[in-house]
Amino acid sequence: MSSPIKFKIEKKLGGKLGRAGILSTPHGTIQTPAFVTVGTKATVKALSPEQVKDLGAEIVLANTYHLYLQPGDEIIKKNGGLGKFMNWSGPTMTDSGGFQVFSLGAAYGKELSKVTTITDPSLLLPERSDDMDMPKLATVGADGVSFKSHLDGSMHYFTAEKSIEIQHNIGADIIFAFDECTSPVESTRYQEEALFRTHQWAKRSLEYHKSKSQGVNQALFGIVQGGRSEELRKKSAKFLAELSTPDGGFDGFGIGGSFAKEDMSTAVMWVNSVLPEEKPRHLLGIGEPLDLFNGVENGVDLFDCVAPTRMARNGTLYTSDGRINILNAKYMGDISPIDADCGCYTCKNYTRSYLAHLFRAKEMFAGTLASIHNLYFIIHLVKKMRQAILDDNFTEFKEVFLKQYYKGG
Amino acid sequence: MSSPIKFKIEKKLGGKLGRAGILSTPHGTIQTPAFVTVGTKATVKALSPEQVKDLGAEIVLANTYHLYLQPGDEIIKKNGGLGKFMNWSGPTMTDSGGFQVFSLGAAYGKELSKVTTITDPSLLLPERSDDMDMPKLATVGADGVSFKSHLDGSMHYFTAEKSIEIQHNIGADIIFAFDECTSPVESTRYQEEALFRTHQWAKRSLEYHKSKSQGVNQALFGIVQGGRSEELRKKSAKFLAELSTPDGGFDGFGIGGSFAKEDMSTAVMWVNSVLPEEKPRHLLGIGEPLDLFNGVENGVDLFDCVAPTRMARNGTLYTSDGRINILNAKYMGDISPIDADCGCYTCKNYTRSYLAHLFRAKEMFAGTLASIHNLYFIIHLVKKMRQAILDDNFTEFKEVFLKQYYKGG
Repeated sequence: MSSPIKFKIEKKLGGKLGRAGILSTPHGTIQTPAFVTVGTKATVKALSPEQVKDLGAEIVLANTYHLYLQPGDEIIKKNGGLGKFMNWSGPTMTDSGGFQVFSLGAAYGKELSKVTTITDPSLLLPERSDDMDMPKLATVGADGVSFKSHLDGSMHYFTAEKSIEIQHNIGADIIFAFDECTSPVESTRYQEEALFRTHQWAKRSLEYHKSKSQGVNQALFGIVQGGRSEELRKKSAKFLAELSTPDGGFDGFGIGGSFAKEDMSTAVMWVNSVLPEEKPRHLLGIGEPLDLFNGVENGVDLFDCVAPTRMARNGTLYTSDGRINILNAKYMGDISPIDADCGCYTCKNYTRSYLAHLFRAKEMFAGTLASIHNLYFIIHLVKKMRQAILDDNFTEFKEVFLKQYYKGG
Repeated sequence: MSSPIKFKIEKKLGGKLGRAGILSTPHGTIQTPAFVTVGTKATVKALSPEQVKDLGAEIVLANTYHLYLQPGDEIIKKNGGLGKFMNWSGPTMTDSGGFQVFSLGAAYGKELSKVTTITDPSLLLPERSDDMDMPKLATVGADGVSFKSHLDGSMHYFTAEKSIEIQHNIGADIIFAFDECTSPVESTRYQEEALFRTHQWAKRSLEYHKSKSQGVNQALFGIVQGGRSEELRKKSAKFLAELSTPDGGFDGFGIGGSFAKEDMSTAVMWVNSVLPEEKPRHLLGIGEPLDLFNGVENGVDLFDCVAPTRMARNGTLYTSDGRINILNAKYMGDISPIDADCGCYTCKNYTRSYLAHLFRAKEMFAGTLASIHNLYFIIHLVKKMRQAILDDNFTEFKEVFLKQYYKGG
């Protein structure tokens, strides 16, 4: 069975794992490396699909956990699948739900710890759903995980097969194997056990996916885990890369979990030096400019992160000179655009003064204009990295950008 | 001094005061009768200017009270005026602030009564700002009215001159004279006193406006008041129609205040039989389908009302068969559009099922899609009335529409 996606490497970054490529899906192509826009609940918060397309987005990622609970995957199927449901004609992805179900705090029969309880600043935590609603009371076993809906308290059980079945109903172009996302504070022993489960679930996800004709137009990515351990990360990449059925293996790979902030690049390099070069790699939930540069340099093709839109809704905006908060009083009478160097709809048509007014007035259009700007900024930053690979000046571009962006601290 | 607007009547409704016309402003023309879209705080809630234009809106009305307090009229002037500030290139209007300052409950040194305390169902109350924030503690005198900001409790004083000065800074194509909007429960004696003040303020508004070159590209409308009294309404229309300066009189008229619901048509007829035929008339804050038909029939050229967008944000949607509430459980799996007869962006691209999901998920895009639909519905309803006048079948169109729309109760 041939893959529903095709990945072609156009150019490699000399001496590094980075590359510029083209990923073809049943709903269009993506120039990689690319930043994937998050539409948690089958909508990119505050934006129309036309606005999402106009700002340069090529692909949208929705979250399986949220859509399973509301409106339900059967309703999305009845609507003709995710793309038709949300009126987005381009490529789509869904995650497996594993990240949300585990909420970064997996547990054997104990309550999940919250994301917010992890305060170690050296940890790079992925931001993978554009919504603070998380399930409670997950219990993880060899077969899957039970959890309580944040909406109505009802109990649910996800297995690898169930996650893939839901993702078949939702119908995105690229779907992910069910995985256990461990908390970075868990012991090495727990990380090993969790990785064993993730690998069993990857195998079952792949077998179930290949056995169903419903998902024939959907590509399946396996997710590399292994926490902060070089040994586990490489072991995981090798296991998933070699995993196969008579109908083939994974179409691509996700890199999940958390990292130590200072050596994210190294961890990604460990993984990508093992994964097969010819398949696309998606670094899940990472989106800071510095981390994007490091990810691209080390062979990441796709990123997603809710930070650009979440920050936007709080009035925190990217500029070439670093972030600004538009609620700062000095912007009230400032008739310049957010960023004079930016070509986005917001910067071309509105002043900081107008944005400052809308945020103070708590107008919905504030979130729209700010999200357009932040997404444009990050998406085009990755597009520029791609161009820099093609133009053989990636390192120079990285240095100049980061120097200006982080100079303010 | 010639008027900055031109009004041309294309066709009259046989035997009635109604007419189809074309109103030309410095920023474009409006086919009348027309429904004016409300953008209280220099933004039509949840919509981009492109979405507002695409749904058929020809003109946007902003509120002077809100913009004076935030961001301040000087900041809007610094941004190049209302149109540039909000990126709306078409015609604009501002009200005088009188309605908000009085909050439907004028008082001599006593606290304002709230809109919500008026519960008489026979009263037709205008809905003129798309925001529940109202000032407190207004005190009205011959010269103007003092009020307390709902934002920070600061005290402010509006006179006719002040209102016009603010509206000159905001810079809309059409502005309104400062008026006292009385509560319908006030005594006849109070209504007479209030009308006397409104007429004095109309005179001062007109004189101040004509004396300033700043407003030379802005048309000024006087506002007819007089509550539910035929005598006062006719007196007010006559006074304002005859009011003049060496540089001319009002460019058009607003019809303000509240009516008894069952005889709104009669009250509008009283006023419009007195007002000069060749100038445009704006019925302020009225937008129910039945009232729009009655207004058009009786010679109203412009309407504005926040009901379509306010209802939209609560999930109440217009259809040819009356209103529906999309939060009703039966719509969760309904893959038909809101209204099969509707040509709006929402109905062409999304199902009731998707809308039901977005509203349950409290997604911002729910308000966007619902507002597009409701505004399109009402704006195009008035456009159809206009066409019916041109086609000599207004009465038939009215009967057929109202029979179907109100059949559900």
